Amino acid sequence: MMRPLMAEHVKRDLVSIGDLSTAEILELFHHADEFRANLHAWSDLCRGAIMATLFFEPSTRTRLSFESAMLRLGGGVISAADTESSSRAKGESLADTVRVVGGSYADILVVRHPEDGAARVAARYATVPVINGGDGAHEHPTQTLCDLYTLWKEKGRLQGLEVVLCGDLRYSRTIHSFCYALARFGANIVTMPYPGFELPDYVLRRLDREFGVRAASASVGDLPGLADSSNAVAYLTASKPHQLALFTKLGNVEVSRIDAIYMTRAQLERHDSQDTTTDYPRVTPSTLRAASTKDASIMHPLPRVDEISYDLDDDPRSIYFRQAELGVPMRMALMAFLLGKIQLRAKQPDLLSVSPGISGGVGLRCRNEKCITNNEGVRYLERDFRLREKTSPPALSCAFCESELEARFIGHSASRIVHRHNAAEVRQIKPDNRVYFESEAQAEAAGFTWQAT
Amino acid sequence: MMRPLMAEHVKRDLVSIGDLSTAEILELFHHADEFRANLHAWSDLCRGAIMATLFFEPSTRTRLSFESAMLRLGGGVISAADTESSSRAKGESLADTVRVVGGSYADILVVRHPEDGAARVAARYATVPVINGGDGAHEHPTQTLCDLYTLWKEKGRLQGLEVVLCGDLRYSRTIHSFCYALARFGANIVTMPYPGFELPDYVLRRLDREFGVRAASASVGDLPGLADSSNAVAYLTASKPHQLALFTKLGNVEVSRIDAIYMTRAQLERHDSQDTTTDYPRVTPSTLRAASTKDASIMHPLPRVDEISYDLDDDPRSIYFRQAELGVPMRMALMAFLLGKIQLRAKQPDLLSVSPGISGGVGLRCRNEKCITNNEGVRYLERDFRLREKTSPPALSCAFCESELEARFIGHSASRIVHRHNAAEVRQIKPDNRVYFESEAQAEAAGFTWQAT
Amino acid sequence: MMRPLMAEHVKRDLVSIGDLSTAEILELFHHADEFRANLHAWSDLCRGAIMATLFFEPSTRTRLSFESAMLRLGGGVISAADTESSSRAKGESLADTVRVVGGSYADILVVRHPEDGAARVAARYATVPVINGGDGAHEHPTQTLCDLYTLWKEKGRLQGLEVVLCGDLRYSRTIHSFCYALARFGANIVTMPYPGFELPDYVLRRLDREFGVRAASASVGDLPGLADSSNAVAYLTASKPHQLALFTKLGNVEVSRIDAIYMTRAQLERHDSQDTTTDYPRVTPSTLRAASTKDASIMHPLPRVDEISYDLDDDPRSIYFRQAELGVPMRMALMAFLLGKIQLRAKQPDLLSVSPGISGGVGLRCRNEKCITNNEGVRYLERDFRLREKTSPPALSCAFCESELEARFIGHSASRIVHRHNAAEVRQIKPDNRVYFESEAQAEAAGFTWQAT
Repeated sequence: MMRPLMAEHVKRDLVSIGDLSTAEILELFHHADEFRANLHAWSDLCRGAIMATLFFEPSTRTRLSFESAMLRLGGGVISAADTESSSRAKGESLADTVRVVGGSYADILVVRHPEDGAARVAARYATVPVINGGDGAHEHPTQTLCDLYTLWKEKGRLQGLEVVLCGDLRYSRTIHSFCYALARFGANIVTMPYPGFELPDYVLRRLDREFGVRAASASVGDLPGLADSSNAVAYLTASKPHQLALFTKLGNVEVSRIDAIYMTRAQLERHDSQDTTTDYPRVTPSTLRAASTKDASIMHPLPRVDEISYDLDDDPRSIYFRQAELGVPMRMALMAFLLGKIQLRAKQPDLLSVSPGISGGVGLRCRNEKCITNNEGVRYLERDFRLREKTSPPALSCAFCESELEARFIGHSASRIVHRHNAAEVRQIKPDNRVYFESEAQAEAAGFTWQAT
Repeated sequence: MMRPLMAEHVKRDLVSIGDLSTAEILELFHHADEFRANLHAWSDLCRGAIMATLFFEPSTRTRLSFESAMLRLGGGVISAADTESSSRAKGESLADTVRVVGGSYADILVVRHPEDGAARVAARYATVPVINGGDGAHEHPTQTLCDLYTLWKEKGRLQGLEVVLCGDLRYSRTIHSFCYALARFGANIVTMPYPGFELPDYVLRRLDREFGVRAASASVGDLPGLADSSNAVAYLTASKPHQLALFTKLGNVEVSRIDAIYMTRAQLERHDSQDTTTDYPRVTPSTLRAASTKDASIMHPLPRVDEISYDLDDDPRSIYFRQAELGVPMRMALMAFLLGKIQLRAKQPDLLSVSPGISGGVGLRCRNEKCITNNEGVRYLERDFRLREKTSPPALSCAFCESELEARFIGHSASRIVHRHNAAEVRQIKPDNRVYFESEAQAEAAGFTWQAT
Repeated sequence: MMRPLMAEHVKRDLVSIGDLSTAEILELFHHADEFRANLHAWSDLCRGAIMATLFFEPSTRTRLSFESAMLRLGGGVISAADTESSSRAKGESLADTVRVVGGSYADILVVRHPEDGAARVAARYATVPVINGGDGAHEHPTQTLCDLYTLWKEKGRLQGLEVVLCGDLRYSRTIHSFCYALARFGANIVTMPYPGFELPDYVLRRLDREFGVRAASASVGDLPGLADSSNAVAYLTASKPHQLALFTKLGNVEVSRIDAIYMTRAQLERHDSQDTTTDYPRVTPSTLRAASTKDASIMHPLPRVDEISYDLDDDPRSIYFRQAELGVPMRMALMAFLLGKIQLRAKQPDLLSVSPGISGGVGLRCRNEKCITNNEGVRYLERDFRLREKTSPPALSCAFCESELEARFIGHSASRIVHRHNAAEVRQIKPDNRVYFESEAQAEAAGFTWQAT
């Protein structure tokens, strides 16, 4: 029913920022520089190619940026930006839509969808490359690429930068993707959340597990508008400090130089929309008069509401409009790559390090209620989990939305006998025969028993 | 007020599948094959041409297919997909819209509209070719072309094929157009309607009148999910069997080999939307295990809801995604033809066989309440009927929506005296002077009397 | 915060019809003629350029006309026609939107916005040329250009033409722009408003002040459907009659020859939508049987509702569809000019004659409640007024929506002492130090006093 995972080795997609290796990302930056040098010089590179934007959630900015990039590459654009009212209203699944549009209609797809993990579904079913334009609270990787590219151009490097993330850190997929990317490139992160909107635990766990990044409490001096003493300022950095780190042990960190402040608006559409604007953090001229912010670039994914004062628009440290401007050459580079018009010499991510999917249809269910497997995918998706690493109990992550769960019980697919994950019997079960469960009830519901009878 | 009919002889439109001759359709199939051989090789063929999609009803799929086809031909696209909110909201008529957009704005129009017959109105008023992208319950001829093309490629022929139509056969314009087309090409039709959603009588009458196709009761053996003994399975075939027919007389037909099953979803948006999904027919793996369906291609115009199991997506007999895929080269061929970029050697339909319009403004009114002449056209359209054939009483069909009515009374335009249609006096009235009425009341309301006074 | 006005001298925008000199407009007409001679011959002229349409208010017609023009010039189009639902819904300002889209995304912007003066805001913040596609009740200059161009082609000249404006003259920005343009070109205007929908006073004042055009009462004989004796028919012409005028003194004018009737629909969406269609003026065949209308061209910006009978569509005097048709070559000429692809030899408008902005932030507030400075601009726009001319009291106009106010009080920015505008002390204040107020209360609220204390 689903396309074999093998297909992903042939065509390249960008669903998660992890779908590109660190070296590939840097190489794309250099290509983006070339495109940017003369935006009008590339109108033959992708002539004849068609990009389809399938936006199941509105986003003028992201859609226009992709469309502009494709037109500047000489390609054509077809766009379903109002998909609520047509095929989807008639009950069509995302899998069907991408199989139709990603056939003869278009040569590359950009998908935005409200359900977590939707872009991975699109990538599996489409025979053409898929770019994730934002899937629920999961990821928005091209925004991350553009942010990294802007910061890299501004500072000349990413490693060792001190980056403050401020505002709604809980619901912003942009922030989550950016965190992982900063960690990969060796930047340090200072979190200044709007109280109640801290980074979620699963992001912290993943930062630790994948990048060895851990949090310490921190102080950053007086930053008017951003944080006061009551805020929980945290410092996220490699627990084995890399060579450029300014300190030698984690603990109470004092950050004296800030390289960038990344501000986000309250994602009101993703939670109950109480008015948070009255005491929401705000970058103003006084914020930038602190000694620590002398060279701080001010970033924002836009649209802003009031989080950054208009008085700062002409300040040379304000680079939020440059982020948008650089989005076009960055997306040109990405699409030219995915369409095979430019080649990267860098090694692609080691896909083999990702364990093959665990056909968990028997018992497991993704814990994320907004995951596509618990929503429209119920009709056609097989559940699919990956073994993240050999923790005890084993941590599995949903192959679509990447949410995690712990498999406390493991059974044998043939004998249908289940054990605690740390029982001696488990070691006898070959990996291919293992069936994972979160709870006893789940195992029993799937017809597993504790003893051969 | 209306453009003279003569104009239709010069520019070509595709409002009804009957606007193309059978030979032209086959020739377009061969052109579509050429386009499909390399979709990316045609970006100079229609360079400079602009297609406008005027969609007064949402349809992502159809619109994107047309737009992709035009872009692959090298042309440009302008699109009014959300027309509810602008000109039309301001009260503009379709006739005005197509005269504006089909002037300097665009070189070809694709129109989708909720009212039956709207595409014919567009074709009359526009000075550029018009393609019907679906007008109410009337026709959707490019869908039919794509369906025929897919079946023709799959089976190598159309004549003599045994095609099952299943589901909502009443409200699906796709099904109606497809029926006429199958009859023209000499295929036989087995209807398996969802009870209450049988083919309408006017479709059956037209099949009989135009193609000599009549219905017989039929049995097809056990087809789980599609039909049970309570279903009224009918067999539609030429009453004078063509050379490839498998039988010599109509009657109780047993169909032992099915070449294709064409499934449709319930057109919930066209009737009261009770939930019909519980007992709606459904193609599942068990359906395809019947002996008769061994070589049956599974077709669907998409989007599907649940009528075809996802388990069949990888079955080689499932060709519903291929239907969508072939839509692009088929539409490329059609548009290149209408724009004069490819020539067909085949003879065009014999338009002279269609009687000239009967200016029925005096008394007749189309019986179809959803006909554009009874809706927005009231403001500006003259009623227009065509004499279908010399039945008694004469059958007239609306020149826009093709609904039929019987003219039981005929008057003289000058003397304003009316007679029963079969009265001797009628034969004295020259055709040009005849005025047709359905009822005495209608004739009297128009000021006609029974006797010279 | 705002871009310096100087920037407007470098790039050219079309926000108001006054942004083009009379000679430039005529030169553009000749270019439009060239484009029109073969619409398909220009697909290399602007290859690689991208136009963005930012429509914060629906308008299929205007948007499609611009998009067609850009495609015919060989450029690409990105379009945000449904902006309610995305960035703007997230609270983004127009200034931010145009800085993002008018950066790397697009090379020229077309903006339609419901607030008066919005297009000027867009032009100030964007680094690329901005075309006003209609901003509230302010202006719609490309419609005016197309109307003038059509009339000029039809009559061979504009000077001395007798043009009747009929219908809703109050809320139609199209009419207002057209009035100013007719006055500039020396045409005479006969107003036949739907009662209660007369030309606003501020339009009359501006016609007088800028073009020396004044109103006289007039009679035009019997024009069925358009006016009866109870209508206030006014005649607007140069108070110093130009050489082609048909009369030598203003007063009771009798117009015996009408060159054009420009009809508009009721702008129901701009005021309380009572049904006005019952007694709204209407051009019918009988209107055109009057002696005075023998050579009258019938114009309409479209979409029409019922103001012009469909029976006139084939009358050679009906040129409303030609207006739409000529819109494409006219917009091609305009965009090719703004993108620097064609040069005009004519002198540009004498921008220096416009006084520099008066930083009225201290006290003045635009009186137009629909002005962008009183709506979304409150968050970021500095108020800005221009000294129209040295009347007494001084007339100032809003730099955005061009509404006027009278500054009855003038203070000194340093001493903060205020005087009546005609006080002797005012003459001692250097222009740069003057602060203007409408009322004493306004001056006092700004902390100004009457006496040094």
